[in-house]
Amino acid sequence: MARRIPASKKSLPLSRVYRLLEPGPVVLLTTAQRGRANVMAMSWHTMLEFEPPLVGCVVSNRDFSFAALKATRECVINIPTVKLADAVVRCGNTSGRRGDKFAASGLTPVPASSVAPPLIAECYASLECRVVDTRPVPKYCLFVLEVVKAWIDPGVRAPRTLHHRGRGEFMVAGRTIRLSSKAK
Amino acid sequence: MARRIPASKKSLPLSRVYRLLEPGPVVLLTTAQRGRANVMAMSWHTMLEFEPPLVGCVVSNRDFSFAALKATRECVINIPTVKLADAVVRCGNTSGRRGDKFAASGLTPVPASSVAPPLIAECYASLECRVVDTRPVPKYCLFVLEVVKAWIDPGVRAPRTLHHRGRGEFMVAGRTIRLSSKAK
Repeated sequence: MARRIPASKKSLPLSRVYRLLEPGPVVLLTTAQRGRANVMAMSWHTMLEFEPPLVGCVVSNRDFSFAALKATRECVINIPTVKLADAVVRCGNTSGRRGDKFAASGLTPVPASSVAPPLIAECYASLECRVVDTRPVPKYCLFVLEVVKAWIDPGVRAPRTLHHRGRGEFMVAGRTIRLSSKAK
Repeated sequence: MARRIPASKKSLPLSRVYRLLEPGPVVLLTTAQRGRANVMAMSWHTMLEFEPPLVGCVVSNRDFSFAALKATRECVINIPTVKLADAVVRCGNTSGRRGDKFAASGLTPVPASSVAPPLIAECYASLECRVVDTRPVPKYCLFVLEVVKAWIDPGVRAPRTLHHRGRGEFMVAGRTIRLSSKAK
């Protein structure tokens, strides 16, 4: 594991976290249990509250990460760009049951500041999260997370995030337009 | 209101619904109460189950649509492309409390097949939904919807959907890449 958070990453005010997740990118969720870290690709997530930022995310009870998330109540949501497409697919195609997915994917774990699971150095943003509500888990495998610390590479202005269209198809984030929206 | 579903729209198998919402597009949610239809822009949604397709969506209790959705337990999720950007912003900038948002936005309501709220003719896809669980509403304004009927314009292959980045910024869906993902 790398020693510390890369100098390129800066702390992001929690009030801005929704701007990262609201567009719907594929994220890489890291968990850790008994000293062993794991990472999975995830697309089923939504913001639930602006501040403190609450996120609802579905982690199937068939995923190896489910038990770690339920037991430790901690995770990190890492946001990759298209440069990491191959690593994302490798994370999605294998299970942590069968080995170290960090090694298999070539991703670099970095210690987080507030939770045990690692950040991923190569991702342009990372959100350290605690599970704050598990009531929707039995029915929907839906965990409610509170983002307690956020990191971003401020040099990445218009991140080319990946958006899963199913069956091997991913949309790559295109151009940004500005509209006179009054929405937050 | 237009008389019927446009001939360009075809029924979409419910097993494919997740492929429309998983990339995280801004959607237009239609509701109807006492014979009056309303429409709002929404970005906080996630798939919860493949089939039957379940969707979790946050409709704030400050939104005019909240009462209609809670009382009637029906809505339609319509997916616009960048061609409708101005209409999306107009829906987001005004409240149904202050008038007919269909008239204000220039969008055309069309009767749905299974629910009372209308489809939007100009959107490339529309998902007729029933509310199946309101238990997460008091805490998170999170409604659980089941998609009971889906419509799509099969001529739209790589829809240029809108993805909200906050504060007037929208990402427009870019190119599609194919990766050897084993994920559904």
